[in-house]
Amino acid sequence: MDQKDISQAVIGRLPRYFRYLGELKDTGIERISSQELSERMKVTASQIRQDFNNFGGFGQQGYGYNVEYLYNEIGKILGLDKTHRFVIIGAGNLGQALGGYINFERRGFIFSGIFDVNKDIIGKDVRGIKVRSMDELDEFIKANDIDIAVLTLPKTGAVEVAERLASDGIKAIWNFAHVDLHLTNDIQVENVHLSDSLMKLSYNLNRNTSENDVF
Amino acid sequence: MDQKDISQAVIGRLPRYFRYLGELKDTGIERISSQELSERMKVTASQIRQDFNNFGGFGQQGYGYNVEYLYNEIGKILGLDKTHRFVIIGAGNLGQALGGYINFERRGFIFSGIFDVNKDIIGKDVRGIKVRSMDELDEFIKANDIDIAVLTLPKTGAVEVAERLASDGIKAIWNFAHVDLHLTNDIQVENVHLSDSLMKLSYNLNRNTSENDVF
Repeated sequence: MDQKDISQAVIGRLPRYFRYLGELKDTGIERISSQELSERMKVTASQIRQDFNNFGGFGQQGYGYNVEYLYNEIGKILGLDKTHRFVIIGAGNLGQALGGYINFERRGFIFSGIFDVNKDIIGKDVRGIKVRSMDELDEFIKANDIDIAVLTLPKTGAVEVAERLASDGIKAIWNFAHVDLHLTNDIQVENVHLSDSLMKLSYNLNRNTSENDVF
Repeated sequence: MDQKDISQAVIGRLPRYFRYLGELKDTGIERISSQELSERMKVTASQIRQDFNNFGGFGQQGYGYNVEYLYNEIGKILGLDKTHRFVIIGAGNLGQALGGYINFERRGFIFSGIFDVNKDIIGKDVRGIKVRSMDELDEFIKANDIDIAVLTLPKTGAVEVAERLASDGIKAIWNFAHVDLHLTNDIQVENVHLSDSLMKLSYNLNRNTSENDVF
């Protein structure tokens, strides 16, 4: 099946399946039915089967899914059997938090460099890697086979830096800057807007506490 | 219109409208058509009109939308005209990053306390607020009118802490721990799984660089 046919909604659910299957595998569970998986994940069994059918199904009728096989197959679909080297642009608290997160390494994402413009931060150690000056960025990306850039810098500099990364040949941007990036070429962008998530929580909180209101 | 009728998909798009309208407002633009907004936001004008119709429409035909009015109305729907006090549980880099983010205050989210179990971190200053021991958590929440708890602690402690927060009367949890929280009562939960977002990027990156592959 050609991967291009699969919707981003389905893709967006794959990491969650991968996470639950990893937990099942770690607790020694070898097989699971779509019904049992459904109960754990609070989605319908029909949704699970539909999602998996996009990739040929994975299943053995009557016996449920083989947990380790399913975990490995979804991992491969997500590209987690490959290694990707990433750099972080912006060595503030969020940049340092992401650089320090060792679980990314377990998934094949190798923290390779971290950059900032602030002279007080340059040279500081983040999990064994020294913060470099932005002046070294372009050469570093080209010389070190970097696929992914993580943007944890203020919104004012983000668009300019993204365009610079594009011309350096980066393949994907994980963007935490508070601006949507629309790059014209083949660069993949995943925007993470933390404020948007907090506002959604705020909506549900206010709706919940005033659910008899009409507007 | 009763807010209960509105889907989470629509709610999930409101913060992005709010963000774009804020930028328009800041640059002095007073009116905008759904077509112009559509071009900026890379969504269809029909989607915008459908989303806004959930809230009565907002629009003036022929003249487009009044930017400031629309910005304020969407802000109210999101509950941003109210004040919410939040605490952060887990004063690692991510917790400190979120505590330091002053834009939350502009939206009415007041950073009121930060807690950790680590004796080396307790007492440290995060934007004028001292990190407190987890022993003080329950009393602090009850005494300080705290609505929202932000969980930036490891997955192992998250479920237990969430249940503790529930019995303290917290109304909403913004969860960054790597586990889905399913609380039974009226507590709103917004799970932010950063690894899931990175895996989705990984999928698109691998699909993009091997788009002729069939599997």
